[in-house]
Amino acid sequence: MFLKADKVIYEFGPDLEAHYYVKAGDEFVVETNDCFYQQLLSEGGCLANLDMGRVNPATGPIFVEGAEVGDLLKVEILEIQLADRGVASVFPGMGFLADKNTEEKSFILPVEEEKVDLFGVRLPVEPMIGVIGVATKKDYLATDTPGAHGGNLDTKDIGPGSTIYFPVNQEGALLALGDCHAIMGDGEVGVTGLEIAAKVRLRLDVIKNKELPWPLLETEDSLMLLVSAPDIESALKLGLEETILLLKKSLGLSWNEATVLSSLALDARISQLVNPQKTVRYPIKKEILSMEKILKSL
Amino acid sequence: MFLKADKVIYEFGPDLEAHYYVKAGDEFVVETNDCFYQQLLSEGGCLANLDMGRVNPATGPIFVEGAEVGDLLKVEILEIQLADRGVASVFPGMGFLADKNTEEKSFILPVEEEKVDLFGVRLPVEPMIGVIGVATKKDYLATDTPGAHGGNLDTKDIGPGSTIYFPVNQEGALLALGDCHAIMGDGEVGVTGLEIAAKVRLRLDVIKNKELPWPLLETEDSLMLLVSAPDIESALKLGLEETILLLKKSLGLSWNEATVLSSLALDARISQLVNPQKTVRYPIKKEILSMEKILKSL
Repeated sequence: MFLKADKVIYEFGPDLEAHYYVKAGDEFVVETNDCFYQQLLSEGGCLANLDMGRVNPATGPIFVEGAEVGDLLKVEILEIQLADRGVASVFPGMGFLADKNTEEKSFILPVEEEKVDLFGVRLPVEPMIGVIGVATKKDYLATDTPGAHGGNLDTKDIGPGSTIYFPVNQEGALLALGDCHAIMGDGEVGVTGLEIAAKVRLRLDVIKNKELPWPLLETEDSLMLLVSAPDIESALKLGLEETILLLKKSLGLSWNEATVLSSLALDARISQLVNPQKTVRYPIKKEILSMEKILKSL
Repeated sequence: MFLKADKVIYEFGPDLEAHYYVKAGDEFVVETNDCFYQQLLSEGGCLANLDMGRVNPATGPIFVEGAEVGDLLKVEILEIQLADRGVASVFPGMGFLADKNTEEKSFILPVEEEKVDLFGVRLPVEPMIGVIGVATKKDYLATDTPGAHGGNLDTKDIGPGSTIYFPVNQEGALLALGDCHAIMGDGEVGVTGLEIAAKVRLRLDVIKNKELPWPLLETEDSLMLLVSAPDIESALKLGLEETILLLKKSLGLSWNEATVLSSLALDARISQLVNPQKTVRYPIKKEILSMEKILKSL
């Protein structure tokens, strides 16, 4: 199954109309556009010429048969096949140092042999998905915004081999994704990663009657909630509180024990600093907490 | 040479009086107290009984012969030998979630075979120095506060095998250190790591006529400025700006190039969220930038 990148949405909401239909257990490929719908790769591509109505496209929505409100949608990211070049940009008044960015500049960078040349240094690509989410409970949120439904999470750990669990807010879950990056650092401080079209191979499953307040990401060695809030300090505070509550519940710890465990063994990590809401994570090593224990406690 | 932990300071300033004298090239051991001067390890140890005049002791100051204003002090951390137990605490109204911490609790945890048992999980220790700094240009800053002189940086990468470079603000540099942790996560969200007495083996050197605006840490694979500011958002912004300026100068990049390089290849990392100033770092992989290039550009 191959879901083409010409069916896209620009907003997550409660009443998304499905473009594709899949079944739990299905494995398939989703084609994604880069966050500019490839407009900056063309002759004359620049901010002034951008059709802003085509920024941050997410391929989908994908209706998952059997996914009902109160379930979890499990999304295994099996592979991300990158296009042969991407774009990284600085725009005046944008990025984490908005005031200091005064001049527009886009760098079109080829990806060759899974490496990218950054001003003379060849670095291995670290493919990731920037936008991935499901229908919301009731809000309408542009695809540039992260939240409890997912969306523009811009978390570099959402890559091949990881699994992300979303709360199912509407029948069929209605997954959509896009905005892949060939490489990006925590923070995405300039306002872009290396923005690139991709083909993402996924496998979906439904976990019945389990609820989570935020997307939960599982990597090879860690588990983490992906928590977003309007500014970085409140995101870090909310993320910590949600993580402590998860540790309490799934490990049977007191507040103080879970706080000390967090202080000693978890890293406060920043996903991104530049979207309408900021996203953080506190990865928990699997030696400390397993997915089985989390699911049992829900 | 063995510098005992009974000579300590509680404030960094411009006019520190030396307790110890060493020469460039010397290798020696500094004994450090834990941040509570071991008071929480005793019978009846609790916040109410703490002699607050003995909190955050830093062993020193150590006068380094030949270190003059405008030089860099190079501090190689060769080994950190931990005491056999430490303490991790939660205090009402303290920590990153100050409002949610309502009850005092201290956990005294043994360190055995370089491991610590955290509520049923045995984790390897990751020894680090919390407070390390030199005499200031002119400010008086308690040892609980980080700044351009170092101080309470609480950066977990300041461990064995790392090297930290300080600006020399006063003749002899006047190094002092303490507040070691057996283990701590980025953020130190609870307000303590596993606080522990230690013996730290160091080697000092002086690099003549080179100036840096912030402490610079070199680990096995990365280089990073340790930047502090009153709140986490301003620390992250200032840290990014200083890092971009360093990349520009030492790699000969434009602002936009250094911004894109930061956005794609550097992680915005939090050192600590709980001291009077917050500390961040943006580690730069040595494939991207070498210490030689930095020194050449200064």
